[in-house]
Amino acid sequence: MTNQSSYITMPKGYLAAGVHCGMKKDGKPDLALVVSECSASVAGVYTRNIVQGHSLRRTRRLVSEFGTCRGVLINSVSANACIGPVGEEDADRVAAEAARVIGVRPEEILTCSTGVIGKRLPVKKMTEGITELEKNLSASEEAAHSAMRAIMTTDLVPKEASAVVEINGNTVTISGMAKGSGMIHPDLATLIGIITTDADIDPSSLDTLLRDAVKYTINRVSVDGDTSVCDTILMMANGMSGQEIKSETDEYELFAQALESVARDLAQMIAADGEGATKLIEVRVEGAPSEEDALLIVRSICRSPLCKTAIFGEDANWGRILTAAGYSGASFNPDRADIYFGTLQVCKGGCALDFDEAEAKRILSESTVLIDVRLHSGSCADRMWTCDFSYDYVKINGSYRT
Amino acid sequence: MTNQSSYITMPKGYLAAGVHCGMKKDGKPDLALVVSECSASVAGVYTRNIVQGHSLRRTRRLVSEFGTCRGVLINSVSANACIGPVGEEDADRVAAEAARVIGVRPEEILTCSTGVIGKRLPVKKMTEGITELEKNLSASEEAAHSAMRAIMTTDLVPKEASAVVEINGNTVTISGMAKGSGMIHPDLATLIGIITTDADIDPSSLDTLLRDAVKYTINRVSVDGDTSVCDTILMMANGMSGQEIKSETDEYELFAQALESVARDLAQMIAADGEGATKLIEVRVEGAPSEEDALLIVRSICRSPLCKTAIFGEDANWGRILTAAGYSGASFNPDRADIYFGTLQVCKGGCALDFDEAEAKRILSESTVLIDVRLHSGSCADRMWTCDFSYDYVKINGSYRT
Repeated sequence: MTNQSSYITMPKGYLAAGVHCGMKKDGKPDLALVVSECSASVAGVYTRNIVQGHSLRRTRRLVSEFGTCRGVLINSVSANACIGPVGEEDADRVAAEAARVIGVRPEEILTCSTGVIGKRLPVKKMTEGITELEKNLSASEEAAHSAMRAIMTTDLVPKEASAVVEINGNTVTISGMAKGSGMIHPDLATLIGIITTDADIDPSSLDTLLRDAVKYTINRVSVDGDTSVCDTILMMANGMSGQEIKSETDEYELFAQALESVARDLAQMIAADGEGATKLIEVRVEGAPSEEDALLIVRSICRSPLCKTAIFGEDANWGRILTAAGYSGASFNPDRADIYFGTLQVCKGGCALDFDEAEAKRILSESTVLIDVRLHSGSCADRMWTCDFSYDYVKINGSYRT
Repeated sequence: MTNQSSYITMPKGYLAAGVHCGMKKDGKPDLALVVSECSASVAGVYTRNIVQGHSLRRTRRLVSEFGTCRGVLINSVSANACIGPVGEEDADRVAAEAARVIGVRPEEILTCSTGVIGKRLPVKKMTEGITELEKNLSASEEAAHSAMRAIMTTDLVPKEASAVVEINGNTVTISGMAKGSGMIHPDLATLIGIITTDADIDPSSLDTLLRDAVKYTINRVSVDGDTSVCDTILMMANGMSGQEIKSETDEYELFAQALESVARDLAQMIAADGEGATKLIEVRVEGAPSEEDALLIVRSICRSPLCKTAIFGEDANWGRILTAAGYSGASFNPDRADIYFGTLQVCKGGCALDFDEAEAKRILSESTVLIDVRLHSGSCADRMWTCDFSYDYVKINGSYRT
């Protein structure tokens, strides 16, 4: 169901472009526009940080007020946060300019900003960039990939995923793109994600679909435990496939599964491309007394610098995993806990096993490492993705702003 | 009041020794004994991790049951944790051996273990080491420093602090030693701390004094957010100064202040010697709506890898500090928040200030960096110490176990 080659304009009726407007010092694209050819339902999920960027606040207000939009303007380099009232005015100005060039109302253009906090948006440069964007707007794969590149900050690889489902003879497509590499922790990761679909979905159902889809996918990614001030995922549904998706129908279930697969693919790509990451780590917990306990434990392990540096060093230090579970605040009986790296059991009933160190080393040297914790203290489970903690994380973040 | 040259046998009636019994590969001391010449009141504070080491569990039980002891046997290299029932038997065996050689009852010798989880104590090696310890037991500064070195794991520097107070013409001395460098976060830090005094204090008052002393000192240290399974601080009071300390007296206040200064000195030494640390960071928050909010914010900032790598890189990225405060779970108005590095204000009312980058760089290049957050949202304050996050943290922790 999931496609290998994905791009944001795969669903019918979407155009995109990405250009360099002068914000990134290396000349790479830094301004993106994704547009629907007709009015689309829109839903959003946002950071729970109480500090929130101005572009985000504007978007949140418009999504809540209208539930529809025509496009999203996204810039990297500046987060447009902690600027004061002028921050929202700047977001209004660039949105109005984008609306003008494509011939829609200003409130139909949403805004996302990601990058450094405390720097104003360069409105003049962005205005010039918007003129370029309008010239480049296209449904082509190339234009869509340019938009993806324009929203990247410390990301090393673009993150695009899609799914196609046949519903009642109609082809319905969902496609997503996301940036996010550091300051990643639920809820949400420090990411900007845009998901498009040509299904016909009312704003309220779309909101539910999006929330459900991110819950066990993008909200289960941690790179460093930090949550940013501009995390936003927006989903647009323009109806151009002719297929309506109504709640409590078989179509809804099919669509929800496809959407979750897109969100899961993006989640894994974000974790695998975490700043400085050399490995994707999947942490599974089962047998927890409650769902809350299971979540506390996967979060605690995914957040632990000691667990993450051990995996970087390919050191089967399972004691740190049990330790992180133990201080997570979750309730469980540590004397029943089993821990596996992949299929290799290293701890049984809370006690050391005399395991094969060479086999452990082999498992930990893979590009994806599974940490599997079985608590035998209940019937609840959860899962989260993170990455290892390397020298490069420190390097990248020691000099990000300057 | 605080001494520059401190050692654990400074108070009257204490002996100590540290020897190499064969656990550390480099031949450095790995087994320590601290003994009081007479029975001493004892109090302890312990990790809140629900996974707890066997040596710790034994100590906790004995302190709770008797409230007095004659000595503490401490080993590094193995945490004696996650071994199963044999872990407590091993602790019993080595304690009994130490008790035998110094002629006291086994339950009068407490045990602390720190190091790798899941490795049994080498009882035979330790038994031989205990014979050596007995030969070396002395009140000398040299013997005390050997004991300090024996409890170090990844610590680069010994951590010893003391205070002397004159009370009613009696000289009362308090001295502490502690190890702890990684897996450091309240409550507690991953540390083993032993505090001795020659004051005469009943076990219940000693317990209160110790809890109060660590609350705003050792429980306000974070290196990496991880809390270990064997964190323990034990305090012994043998009365040999002849000065009794009773609650609700002026003497009690004097003593409590001196004890807190010892705990604060140890706390700062622990943070400054955090694994890979190049700087000590002090985070202060004032103007919080509640004490809980203030604590949530200092903890969140101290735990944030993004804040800690920025300080390592000497990058005045105050946005990450406001971000960490914002996702801490604390309630405050971000639009009133001011942030200073040292005396340099970088954020006013939640907004960027056009500050002097060169001056910021100079402040952040100092060996101690103050992050000062003034929320103007209430009247509560807190303070915590941490260190920066460097390449060496990753290096040290990527290959700790092997």
